[in-house]
Amino acid sequence: MRPSGRNLDQLRPISIETGVMRHAEGSCLIRCGDTHVLCSASIEDRPPPFLKGSGQGWVTAEYGMLPRATTTRNRREAAAGKQGGRTVEIQRLIGRALRAGVDRRALGERQIVIDCDVIQADGGTRCAAITGGWVALRLAVNKLIAAKMVTSDPIMDHVAAVSCGIYAGQPVVDLDYAEDSVAGTDGNFVLTGAGRLIEVQMSAEGAAFSRAEMGQLMDLAEGGIAQLVEAQKAALA
Amino acid sequence: MRPSGRNLDQLRPISIETGVMRHAEGSCLIRCGDTHVLCSASIEDRPPPFLKGSGQGWVTAEYGMLPRATTTRNRREAAAGKQGGRTVEIQRLIGRALRAGVDRRALGERQIVIDCDVIQADGGTRCAAITGGWVALRLAVNKLIAAKMVTSDPIMDHVAAVSCGIYAGQPVVDLDYAEDSVAGTDGNFVLTGAGRLIEVQMSAEGAAFSRAEMGQLMDLAEGGIAQLVEAQKAALA
Amino acid sequence: MRPSGRNLDQLRPISIETGVMRHAEGSCLIRCGDTHVLCSASIEDRPPPFLKGSGQGWVTAEYGMLPRATTTRNRREAAAGKQGGRTVEIQRLIGRALRAGVDRRALGERQIVIDCDVIQADGGTRCAAITGGWVALRLAVNKLIAAKMVTSDPIMDHVAAVSCGIYAGQPVVDLDYAEDSVAGTDGNFVLTGAGRLIEVQMSAEGAAFSRAEMGQLMDLAEGGIAQLVEAQKAALA
Amino acid sequence: MRPSGRNLDQLRPISIETGVMRHAEGSCLIRCGDTHVLCSASIEDRPPPFLKGSGQGWVTAEYGMLPRATTTRNRREAAAGKQGGRTVEIQRLIGRALRAGVDRRALGERQIVIDCDVIQADGGTRCAAITGGWVALRLAVNKLIAAKMVTSDPIMDHVAAVSCGIYAGQPVVDLDYAEDSVAGTDGNFVLTGAGRLIEVQMSAEGAAFSRAEMGQLMDLAEGGIAQLVEAQKAALA
Amino acid sequence: MRPSGRNLDQLRPISIETGVMRHAEGSCLIRCGDTHVLCSASIEDRPPPFLKGSGQGWVTAEYGMLPRATTTRNRREAAAGKQGGRTVEIQRLIGRALRAGVDRRALGERQIVIDCDVIQADGGTRCAAITGGWVALRLAVNKLIAAKMVTSDPIMDHVAAVSCGIYAGQPVVDLDYAEDSVAGTDGNFVLTGAGRLIEVQMSAEGAAFSRAEMGQLMDLAEGGIAQLVEAQKAALA
Amino acid sequence: MRPSGRNLDQLRPISIETGVMRHAEGSCLIRCGDTHVLCSASIEDRPPPFLKGSGQGWVTAEYGMLPRATTTRNRREAAAGKQGGRTVEIQRLIGRALRAGVDRRALGERQIVIDCDVIQADGGTRCAAITGGWVALRLAVNKLIAAKMVTSDPIMDHVAAVSCGIYAGQPVVDLDYAEDSVAGTDGNFVLTGAGRLIEVQMSAEGAAFSRAEMGQLMDLAEGGIAQLVEAQKAALA
Repeated sequence: MRPSGRNLDQLRPISIETGVMRHAEGSCLIRCGDTHVLCSASIEDRPPPFLKGSGQGWVTAEYGMLPRATTTRNRREAAAGKQGGRTVEIQRLIGRALRAGVDRRALGERQIVIDCDVIQADGGTRCAAITGGWVALRLAVNKLIAAKMVTSDPIMDHVAAVSCGIYAGQPVVDLDYAEDSVAGTDGNFVLTGAGRLIEVQMSAEGAAFSRAEMGQLMDLAEGGIAQLVEAQKAALA
Repeated sequence: MRPSGRNLDQLRPISIETGVMRHAEGSCLIRCGDTHVLCSASIEDRPPPFLKGSGQGWVTAEYGMLPRATTTRNRREAAAGKQGGRTVEIQRLIGRALRAGVDRRALGERQIVIDCDVIQADGGTRCAAITGGWVALRLAVNKLIAAKMVTSDPIMDHVAAVSCGIYAGQPVVDLDYAEDSVAGTDGNFVLTGAGRLIEVQMSAEGAAFSRAEMGQLMDLAEGGIAQLVEAQKAALA
Repeated sequence: MRPSGRNLDQLRPISIETGVMRHAEGSCLIRCGDTHVLCSASIEDRPPPFLKGSGQGWVTAEYGMLPRATTTRNRREAAAGKQGGRTVEIQRLIGRALRAGVDRRALGERQIVIDCDVIQADGGTRCAAITGGWVALRLAVNKLIAAKMVTSDPIMDHVAAVSCGIYAGQPVVDLDYAEDSVAGTDGNFVLTGAGRLIEVQMSAEGAAFSRAEMGQLMDLAEGGIAQLVEAQKAALA
Repeated sequence: MRPSGRNLDQLRPISIETGVMRHAEGSCLIRCGDTHVLCSASIEDRPPPFLKGSGQGWVTAEYGMLPRATTTRNRREAAAGKQGGRTVEIQRLIGRALRAGVDRRALGERQIVIDCDVIQADGGTRCAAITGGWVALRLAVNKLIAAKMVTSDPIMDHVAAVSCGIYAGQPVVDLDYAEDSVAGTDGNFVLTGAGRLIEVQMSAEGAAFSRAEMGQLMDLAEGGIAQLVEAQKAALA
Repeated sequence: MRPSGRNLDQLRPISIETGVMRHAEGSCLIRCGDTHVLCSASIEDRPPPFLKGSGQGWVTAEYGMLPRATTTRNRREAAAGKQGGRTVEIQRLIGRALRAGVDRRALGERQIVIDCDVIQADGGTRCAAITGGWVALRLAVNKLIAAKMVTSDPIMDHVAAVSCGIYAGQPVVDLDYAEDSVAGTDGNFVLTGAGRLIEVQMSAEGAAFSRAEMGQLMDLAEGGIAQLVEAQKAALA
Repeated sequence: MRPSGRNLDQLRPISIETGVMRHAEGSCLIRCGDTHVLCSASIEDRPPPFLKGSGQGWVTAEYGMLPRATTTRNRREAAAGKQGGRTVEIQRLIGRALRAGVDRRALGERQIVIDCDVIQADGGTRCAAITGGWVALRLAVNKLIAAKMVTSDPIMDHVAAVSCGIYAGQPVVDLDYAEDSVAGTDGNFVLTGAGRLIEVQMSAEGAAFSRAEMGQLMDLAEGGIAQLVEAQKAALA
C-alpha cells in the first residue's frame, strides 16, 4: 500500500558512514533510503557570547540543502541572500534536539557546531540530520575525551529522530517524499536512546487528528527510533 | 506553588476585544494575563502565485513584537534588516494552525493575511496570537459571507492554542514568563473546537519527558482550549 | 468645508493615556482623532559609541507602523528586510525634535530610545509620535530623577508637533488623511512649550506657496501646539 | 566673523559646468566653494509602475557621496549593503523639490532620474545637488523638446536651494562645513525662480529659535536663491 | 621537494564518479587528491531574461563550499546573508569557462545551471569545479540530444582547468593547499581538449614573475590538462 | 581598422591630474580617452584585524561606477543593496595588483584604502583604476615618508595595467567599449615598472586562442605599460 511497498512500521534502509570529512572533528554521511545528509561537528574554543563566564557550553546546528538535492533545482540560499523560513525552523529544531542530550556544564565553555547539508532529498531530511548529527557530535566529543579536555562525558544518551504521519488513512513511519507530499498529518519525534521524549512536532496539513491516532504515531516512532539508535551504535562500533 | 498562585490547570484571565483596528476586515486585541496581542485580518483579492488558477485560497500569518513589549528592549527587526529565527518559526506555526481550520476551496482564490503584533509579552505570545488570530479571521470571513463573496462558510471549526509545560516537576497549563523561562519541558497545543488536534509541539529544554507526562500535558491542553473557545464565542457574540 | 466639519484652526480630539506598557520606563498611547500611536521610552545604561567618554547622553527614536494601520495593508518592514525611506525620514525627525528639548549633559552618559508604533493611521502620525514620544520621555526621565540618577532635570521644556497645510486653498491645522492626501502644501511644525521653533518642514507637493501663506500656517501651528502642550500637561498630572 | 571671512549674506563662489558626462541626457558639475557635486539626468521611457496609464511622468533623484569626499573616509554605502538614513532623507528631498517645478502631465509617461554624486563635500551638498540637479533636468528636457517628444515645456520655473542657519548668534546664508558643524539652527530653503516657496526645512540642533529669526533666515534665502538662479541661467546660456 | 612528494609536473590522483545525484540531469563527484567537489547540471526551459527571443541559450555556474570543507570552519554564506567576494569571483570564472566550450545557438533558448559544491577542500577547488562541471554539463547535454531537444551537439570541445604556480622557486602544477598557501605566484589555466586557451589567470601574491616563468607555467598547464581531459573521457566512457 | 582609427599598438590619450580631492592623502583623475576614473588614497592608522600584531600593513581597494557613467543608466549599487559580482571581482583585482608593488612590512601596521570611482566609462575602467590608483597610493605614501611615519619607502616599483584583446582577428591594445563589447578574447595585464608580471587575466568569450596569440598580446601589453609608467612619472614630477 505504501508507494515503496514498505510495511507501515518499516524504516527505509539506513546507512551511516563515519569519518567522511577529513577536517571535521566528527563527521558522517547518513543515508535513509534516497535521503542523504552529510553531517559534521566542529569544535570551537569559545562558547557563544551569552554563555561567557557561565561554565557551560553550547551545541548549535546549521542546515542547508544543495540546490539540486531535489527533483527541481532550488535557489541557492547564499545567492538569495538569506536562509528561508523552513531552513531556519529546521536548524533550530536540530540544535534544540541535540542540546537536550548534552550536559552543557560537563562540556565546558566551548561550542560545537553541527552542519547538516542535504546532498539528496527524498523526505525526512531533518530527522536524518538529527540522527546523523548526533553521530558527528559523538565522534567530536570522543576527541575531547581522548584529549582530556573534558573530565566526564558530556553526552548523556543517544538522540535520534524519525518522522511519522497519516498516509492514505493509515499511520506510517519514516515517510518518503511520495508519502510526505500528500500526508494529511505528519511530524517528527525526537527520542533518547532510553526512549524518553525530547521533541514532538505533529501538524495537520489537512484534517485534524485524534488523540488515539497520536498514540499510534508515538508507538511507530518508538519502534523506529530503536532501530535508528542501533544503526548509530553499529556505525560507531 | 505557581508564581502567580494559579492552580495547575488554571488559565490566566482572558479578554478578547473585537473591532479595535478600524481599517482591518477583522481585528481583536487578545489579553491572556499580561500578554497582549493585536490581531488583524486583511483580505487580498489574489491568492499567492502558487495557487493561481487552482480554485483555492490561502491563509497566512505574520508575527511581530514591539521592541519594548519585553522587560528589556529588543532590537526592532525592521531596523535589524531581517526577521529572527524565532519570529519566522512562530509565524509559520500561526499560518499552519489557522489554515488547518479553513476549507481553502470554499474560500476561493483569495488570501487572508493575519497580522499578530505583540504589544506586551509575558509568555505564551504565539498561543495568544493563534487564539486571537482566529477571531480576526472569523470576523473577516463574516464580511465575505455578508458580501456574498463566498457561497459556503470556509471556516470549518474554531482553532485555539494553549501552552503546557512541566514547571517545578508539575504539569501546568498556560505558562507565564516566570514559568516559561525555567520550565524544563514546554510546548504548544493547537486544537479545534471539537477537540481534535491540529498541532502538537513539545520540547525538552532540560530533561527529556515520558509518555505519561505527555498524556498529562495533553489533558491540561484539552481543558484549557475548551475555555479559550468559550472566550472566542463570547467575544463574537 | 473640511471633510470632518472642523474649523480651519480646530484640532482633532486628543487623548493621551499613560502607563500603557508595563515594562517600559515611560509609555503612552496618544490618539489624535483616528490616528493612534503607542510610544515607549527605554533607558539604556550606555550612550551610543560616538558619545563614550563625552559626559553627554543621547535620545533617539524608532518609528514603525503595523501593517494594517492603514486602509490597505502595507508590507511589514521586517519582512521586506529594511525600513523604507519614509520611515527613516520620520524617525530621524522624531529623534532630532526630542533631543532639541533635552540638556544632554544633564542626562549623563546614557541613551533613551523612544519607540513610536502606529496602531492606526489617519494622517499626522509623525506629529502624534513626537507629542506622545515626549510624554514617554518625560515619564522615563522622572524615573531617573526619582532614582537620583541625574542631579538636575535634563528636560528643558515641552516639545510637541502639529501638521499644517493648504487644503482647498485654505490654511488648516492638523490634517487628517482625507485632507493630507490631496493638500497641495503641507508640513510639520515642532515647537517648545514656550512657543519657540524646533523644526519647520513645509513642502509643496503641487503649487509653490507664498511667504504670506507660510505666516498663516505658522499662526495655526502656534495655536495648535498650545493645545497639545496642555494635553501633555493634563496627561502627566 | 565667518570662518571664511564672508559677509552674513554672501554665498560662496558658484560655478556650474554643463555637459560633463557625455552619456547623460543632461549633466553638470556644480561647485559651491569646496562643495562639488556631479549631477546627471537620465530619461527613461517608462514611468514608475504606480503611474502606468496615468498620462503623467515622474522625476526622482538618487544621492551618493564618494567615500573620500569628506575629511575622513566614509564607508561606501554599496559595500555596507544599504543607503544610510541621511542619504535616503536627502534624495527624497531632491526628488520632491525638482518635481515641484515640473508639470508631470506635460512630461508624459516617462521618468527622469537625477543622480547627484558628491565628489567633494564642504557643507551644503543637498542644496548644491538641487541647484545643479535642476540644470541637468533642464538640459535633458531640452532634448525632449528638440526631439518633439513633448508638446509643451514640462518645466514650469527654475528650482534652486540654499542653506541658512544661525552661526555664532547671527543669521548666515550658505554655511560651509566649519559653520554647519557648530550652528545651533540650520536648514534649507528651496524656492522657484519667481521666489515662491517649495520646501522649508529648519532644525534647531541646539537652542530653539524665534519666529523673528525665522523671518531673517527667509530673507537671506531669498537673496541667495536669486543669485543661484542667475548662475543657472548663465550656465545654460 | 613538494610537500606531497610529487614531481613538479605531477597531478594528484584524479577520480570522477558520475551519476551521484539522482535528480540532476547530469552530475559527478570529482576528486583531485583531497579536494572533492560535487557538480550537478540542471536544465531550465527558459534562458535568462536578456536572451529571450535571441535564439541562444546560456550556461551559468554557482559555487559553494560546505562550512567544514576546510581545516577550520568557515561561516555559512547563506547564514552570513551573502556570497563572499571569492565565491562570486570563482563562480563567474566557472560560468565563463564552460560557456566558452558551448555553441549557445545550438543549445537553443534554455539555460543550464552548473552547481559546484566543495565537500572537502585542499587547494584547486575552482579548477576541479570546472573540470567536473564540464562532465556534468556533458551528461545533461547528452540527455537533450537523446530527447532530440537539440539538433546538433552544442558542446564544441572538452573544457578542463588546472592550477600552476611557483612554489619554493620552482614551477609546479596542481598545487595543494600546503603549496598554494605559500606560493608567491599562482593561477589557473582553462584549456580546451584541443589545447587552445580559454582562460589564463596568473597572480603574483609576492614577487612579480618573468615572461620566461609564464612560459614554463603554460607548459605545465598543457601537460596537466591533457591528463584531465583523459580522465573526463574515461569517466564518460 | 579600429573604430577609433588607432594603430594596433596605440593607446588612447592619457591624462593624469593629481591632487583633485582636497581631503584625500593622495588622489588623481585619470583619463584614458573617454574612460575617466577618480582615484583616492586614504591612510588608516590601523591594519585590518587579521594583521593586528603582525608588523605588516595592507593595501585594499574599492571600486564603484556612477550610475550614468555608461550609455544607459545602471542601477546604483547602494540602492540595490549590494555590490554586483563584476564590482567585487574588479576591486579584488585592483587591491591584489597594488599590494604586489608594496613592501607591507615597510608600510607598518596601517591600511591604505584606494577608492576608484568611474565617472565616465568607455572600456578599460579596471586598468585605468589600477594605473591611477597607483598614483594616488604613491602620493599618500609620500606623505608618510615626509612625516617620517615610515623609515624606508614601502613602494617597490610602479604598477600599471592595460587591456589587450583580439579584435576583428587582430591583437590590439587598450580596447575601448566599441572594441571590448565585440572582442572574442580580451583581458588585462598588470606589470611593474621593470616590466615584470603581476597579474595576467585573459578570457575567451568567443573562440579560444592560441599560445602564439597569447605571446602577441603580451608584447602589446609590455609596450603599452611602458607608456603608462611614463605618464605616471610625468604626473608625479
